[in-house]
Amino acid sequence: MEVSNVEQPLYMTEENSVEVVLARMKECSDPRFRMIMTSIIMHLHAVIKEIEPTQDEWYAAIHFLTQTGQTCTDTRQEWILLSDVLGVSMLVDTINNRKPSGATESTVLGPFHVSGAPERELGDNICLDGKGMPVVVSGRVTDTNGSPIAGATLDVWMANEDGFYDVQQPGIQPGMNLRGIFHSDADGRYWFRSARPQYYPIPGDGPVGRLLKLSGRHDLRPAHLHVIVTGLGYEPVVTHCFDRKSPYLDSDPVFGVKESLILDFEDHNDQERASQLGIGNPFATVTMDFVLVSSQLGSSPKTENVAR
Amino acid sequence: MEVSNVEQPLYMTEENSVEVVLARMKECSDPRFRMIMTSIIMHLHAVIKEIEPTQDEWYAAIHFLTQTGQTCTDTRQEWILLSDVLGVSMLVDTINNRKPSGATESTVLGPFHVSGAPERELGDNICLDGKGMPVVVSGRVTDTNGSPIAGATLDVWMANEDGFYDVQQPGIQPGMNLRGIFHSDADGRYWFRSARPQYYPIPGDGPVGRLLKLSGRHDLRPAHLHVIVTGLGYEPVVTHCFDRKSPYLDSDPVFGVKESLILDFEDHNDQERASQLGIGNPFATVTMDFVLVSSQLGSSPKTENVAR
Repeated sequence: MEVSNVEQPLYMTEENSVEVVLARMKECSDPRFRMIMTSIIMHLHAVIKEIEPTQDEWYAAIHFLTQTGQTCTDTRQEWILLSDVLGVSMLVDTINNRKPSGATESTVLGPFHVSGAPERELGDNICLDGKGMPVVVSGRVTDTNGSPIAGATLDVWMANEDGFYDVQQPGIQPGMNLRGIFHSDADGRYWFRSARPQYYPIPGDGPVGRLLKLSGRHDLRPAHLHVIVTGLGYEPVVTHCFDRKSPYLDSDPVFGVKESLILDFEDHNDQERASQLGIGNPFATVTMDFVLVSSQLGSSPKTENVAR
Repeated sequence: MEVSNVEQPLYMTEENSVEVVLARMKECSDPRFRMIMTSIIMHLHAVIKEIEPTQDEWYAAIHFLTQTGQTCTDTRQEWILLSDVLGVSMLVDTINNRKPSGATESTVLGPFHVSGAPERELGDNICLDGKGMPVVVSGRVTDTNGSPIAGATLDVWMANEDGFYDVQQPGIQPGMNLRGIFHSDADGRYWFRSARPQYYPIPGDGPVGRLLKLSGRHDLRPAHLHVIVTGLGYEPVVTHCFDRKSPYLDSDPVFGVKESLILDFEDHNDQERASQLGIGNPFATVTMDFVLVSSQLGSSPKTENVAR
């Protein structure tokens, strides 16, 4: 009986490069990590072989990747931004949130969510800097059968009239400006007052901004507000509400737009109603309903939490 | 006559993700950059679809990538190290240095080369800290026909007995320890004195060290010295000389070993010869010849310098 004795190649060549690198992982004890690294190494080497980068191009890549990390601060995450503009964040989000038809679709979290936003009463105005056109946002949280979800939590955040989130302008904007946590009433309804969202640029003065320019892409996100809706017994949904009148809906640099998330903001010129609402005139209103999926149904195949 | 009017998809789904991202580059005016980004985006999305990372795994990746940049300093390049341990540096090096048979093979530059090493006379001792077993390195620089190359430049650098390069230990090692620039004589010959190289760990206290541990890989580079050999009218070669007696030749974490670069270090116990050489006894000798390729022949298809 012959024994097949296939030797691993020891030294790397162009032809065996993937094989040589993967053979080094034979002592890896974490099958999930090994699977992840195998996919990354195979595709990384395929990219190098397709591109055949010069040494100068390789250095330029090293420099870009280094700068991307070094641009990150406590309030700026350039790597998330890079993931966003390459469509990776949106793809990961979509894979992790395969929802049944009719449920509110998810979109990217973005880098500006803050834990511990203040609890608000229904109707409160979260616009603390007084800038921008007033907007009244209202709607209903239901399950996929249309039954109301009482006590659902809506964690809302958005940029101000000048296109910046409060955390991007400490000392300029009031802390927790345009942020708040609301709870739906017994009928699943909620409402609050804010400022109408504006389109705004993602941070463009770093490596990601330069990448967009080289790519011939603009950096302007269409007008939107962010919400995370959670209800006991339901899958949370991280989503946006986009203004159908905004430019750039068809070219969001982070690919966050979905048809179902584009809503009609209604314009009003009605001093009496504005006064009743305690806001300036003119103003806008928008209805933003949410349909949550029961946790039992399971909206996603990715419920396990594989810790790294 | 019918006009086919194929519309680009506007919004990203799992199925069209690559198409949607690539369609955004239609205004990109640099065909080389567009080709590079196209390859990266296609393979990046393929990785995501194969892995289906959880949100937690995606965050772990963002954290790892951020930390890799933030670990870089003036004297440490963690991104080059990551490129090294994934086999990318070696693959890029190989692609850029396709040499005719018989020519000295190239290997990775590594992060510890320093411009402006001191010019030395043939025979000089570059070991300034007096540590380690003495070694005499000698050899000849020729062209591919065996004709000597006079006045060839050999830029040499290596780690000390403790496994560190001078730039990793400022204030501990003498500046420019174990570095020097030599020139071959009229017959193409050179020689110098140094310390015998030792195997040593690549920096293991950062993200790349953690990646190697998770991969079940060690971080020990087999004993080697670095040389860049240049001669007027010849393609420069960036290479190593490995000691055949060193452990880890078959598992270099940066994949730098090639069969032709493994040389025999001869051990000597000869007080008289050691005294003549002005070094301690016992000592070692090694012969390291270099064969350069004429610039006219062109060792590589990648001679253009595509600036980013």
